[in-house]
Amino acid sequence: MTRWQPGASGRLQQAALELFSERGFDNTTVAEIAERAGLTKRTFFRYFADKREVLFAGSDIFVESVVSSIAAQPETVASLDAVAAGFKAVAVASFEERREDASRRQRVIEASPELVEREMIKRSALAEKIAATLRDRGECDPAAALVAWAGVSVFWVAFARWTDPSNRSSLAGLVDEALDQLRDATAQRASIVTA
Amino acid sequence: MTRWQPGASGRLQQAALELFSERGFDNTTVAEIAERAGLTKRTFFRYFADKREVLFAGSDIFVESVVSSIAAQPETVASLDAVAAGFKAVAVASFEERREDASRRQRVIEASPELVEREMIKRSALAEKIAATLRDRGECDPAAALVAWAGVSVFWVAFARWTDPSNRSSLAGLVDEALDQLRDATAQRASIVTA
Repeated sequence: MTRWQPGASGRLQQAALELFSERGFDNTTVAEIAERAGLTKRTFFRYFADKREVLFAGSDIFVESVVSSIAAQPETVASLDAVAAGFKAVAVASFEERREDASRRQRVIEASPELVEREMIKRSALAEKIAATLRDRGECDPAAALVAWAGVSVFWVAFARWTDPSNRSSLAGLVDEALDQLRDATAQRASIVTA
Repeated sequence: MTRWQPGASGRLQQAALELFSERGFDNTTVAEIAERAGLTKRTFFRYFADKREVLFAGSDIFVESVVSSIAAQPETVASLDAVAAGFKAVAVASFEERREDASRRQRVIEASPELVEREMIKRSALAEKIAATLRDRGECDPAAALVAWAGVSVFWVAFARWTDPSNRSSLAGLVDEALDQLRDATAQRASIVTA
């Protein structure tokens, strides 16, 4: 039995992020990640199913945090505002201090179609969980599903801008901006539509 | 050289849909699909990369049709209305007459996590193409991305209802309903939000 490694998971994640940024995701092996972290391949596989999952290790906690923060909003708060508030609370509590790592991670993901697909699937699972949370708050279908997807889109648009190194706004502020833009865009109507 | 098979692709798709519905996706082989269609495995692989792709064969044409219909909307039409009009045009032209097959296909997909993931990835690619089309029409970012995702969500909510056997509304009518519901839901605001 290997001795329990304090912080092994975090060290592996940090090592993976460094190597993926330096060499690219495809050109990095699990053995190299373990070596950089000063650990064994066996330890790696105790924490992560594969090389890809090391990049998505925080996503369950992220989903749970967002969902519980939405569930904690007063019932009088409109569904879309509750979703935005949930994302903003998690942005403040967990994201702002990790902007540089989040940016590097985002660059790694964008460079790999396989990782982009994985992220899309995670995003879809998040939207499903948010929709279920909105139903628990009393929102009807299909509004629950529509608002959940709208909220997820708002967050991801904000997140993409926040991880752009040229942007210095806070993630929570960018969520508010994207929310306003979605509201403006959906409120616009025009009368002449060609079939 | 095998002789060219008229309609081979369509026969394989129909056979696959029948077998997936009868036995489930996981319990059906390419050999069985080919046999049911009166063709060979080799012919199957001339048209489709794998067993999964036979279910998504129409998706490129679908994407192109939606995108070109959005691009054909007058510039005065608001982005979200243009997206909805694009989906409705394709709904009328291609979907209404194939409701039963679409429902069966939807049941097959929903029964398989692997197929649900594939569908999510296709949906994401569709949203990307729609966002690009909206940018070509002069829409700014991030509104283009937000409206594209909102439009895709509207269509998929409508599509899910349309493929429910208990629903008898037209797909175009369900798109309009979902669009109204999205607009109502995003227009709602409440003043008290808990951080």
